[in-house]
Amino acid sequence: MTRFRLLLEYDGGPYVGWQRQDNGPSIQQALAEAVFAFCGERTVPVAAGRTDAGVHALGQVVHLDIARDCAAETLQGALNFHLKPQPIAVLAAATASPGFHARFSAVGRRYLYRIVSRRAPLALDRGRAWWVPVALDAAAMHDAAQRLVGRHDFTSFRSSICQAASPVKTLDRLEVSREGEEIRIAAAARSFLHHQVRNMAGSLKLVGEGRWRAADLEAALAARDRRAAGPTAPPEGLYLVEILY
Amino acid sequence: MTRFRLLLEYDGGPYVGWQRQDNGPSIQQALAEAVFAFCGERTVPVAAGRTDAGVHALGQVVHLDIARDCAAETLQGALNFHLKPQPIAVLAAATASPGFHARFSAVGRRYLYRIVSRRAPLALDRGRAWWVPVALDAAAMHDAAQRLVGRHDFTSFRSSICQAASPVKTLDRLEVSREGEEIRIAAAARSFLHHQVRNMAGSLKLVGEGRWRAADLEAALAARDRRAAGPTAPPEGLYLVEILY
Repeated sequence: MTRFRLLLEYDGGPYVGWQRQDNGPSIQQALAEAVFAFCGERTVPVAAGRTDAGVHALGQVVHLDIARDCAAETLQGALNFHLKPQPIAVLAAATASPGFHARFSAVGRRYLYRIVSRRAPLALDRGRAWWVPVALDAAAMHDAAQRLVGRHDFTSFRSSICQAASPVKTLDRLEVSREGEEIRIAAAARSFLHHQVRNMAGSLKLVGEGRWRAADLEAALAARDRRAAGPTAPPEGLYLVEILY
Repeated sequence: MTRFRLLLEYDGGPYVGWQRQDNGPSIQQALAEAVFAFCGERTVPVAAGRTDAGVHALGQVVHLDIARDCAAETLQGALNFHLKPQPIAVLAAATASPGFHARFSAVGRRYLYRIVSRRAPLALDRGRAWWVPVALDAAAMHDAAQRLVGRHDFTSFRSSICQAASPVKTLDRLEVSREGEEIRIAAAARSFLHHQVRNMAGSLKLVGEGRWRAADLEAALAARDRRAAGPTAPPEGLYLVEILY
């Protein structure tokens, strides 16, 4: 058996998420089927971050084990061939170091949340960003976001179905910047709770609209109650950018 | 009758092009139907640039005449409402100055051609850029491109079905730059021949691959023969960026 490490880009739009489920196509299943088409082996690919339905990846990391002796480059080409015409691309492939585990070896994760704030609906960015038809104050969002940086109990920003053992996480970075009509929220941490980035984005949008102040965000965090924070931002704005090892 | 001027963004992927045709949906038809749904009037919207099938627009300009008395802002909102769920957005609307004609009043056009040069197929940029799985030398492409700038007979880069009276055009700007794995070709002129930008992009790709030198591009231009230049680059990489008046 050889363990391979893959770097994946995908459009999450057509999928129920990374994880195989009965109710629709998943990235995990598409990848397992491409492996089977290549070498006839059944594998269960393991991803660093189990992205939800509609969430995109620019740099998902996956490991999988294959008995067939093949070069990483051959595997990359074969998987890209068999994944066609699905919007999943293997950007890189390498044999993994001994003991490498895509999820448990990861020491950092970076996400990007894209908001497009303009009156007109999205045409080219449809399904690729959250359309917010009101003006947002990115500077206020950035200032408020700094209240969330650091080690905190993030219960207020945690999905009710989150399986993490503890709601305490250290948020290393939460930066909000504007580029034209686009507002980008960059988040970095060792790991995140389920829906944490989307829940933070949903609350930051309230700040951007002027409905919340930084103190309201801080109070929501302190409440340790999901109902105290803002709504969950939609999946189409979220991108898994990079996994650090 | 009031003449309105609209600024449009669209994903050209699902369309046969700007112009109404019998063989599929067009942006012109979608817009005319949205006007009809709004006010029950039959109009023939006129665009500054008649984009081909699959070509995108970030800033297409259109004019149309409506008898119903309405504010430009109302029209914009109504058209965006009735265009749903199509990937066409009215970014701005205004009443046009007397004599304004989207096509004939235009004094400049800007296009962008996007190439993504990498081994892996495109996932998130599928249908949004030309995937070129070999390395390209953007600096060589830029240098060669300068041979096309200026006033020339562009017959070698002109579609056989081009209806322009003359093949002589003045190309103001043709700049090639790299941003990571993406190569961007920015073109500006008062007007372009049919397929001119895509034909120039197809020839520049030959330069990028090292199969052509700048002198070959110059010779292709001098030949005044479509067969002397490179193949037509695919439509999905082309964006109509801006129309100047």
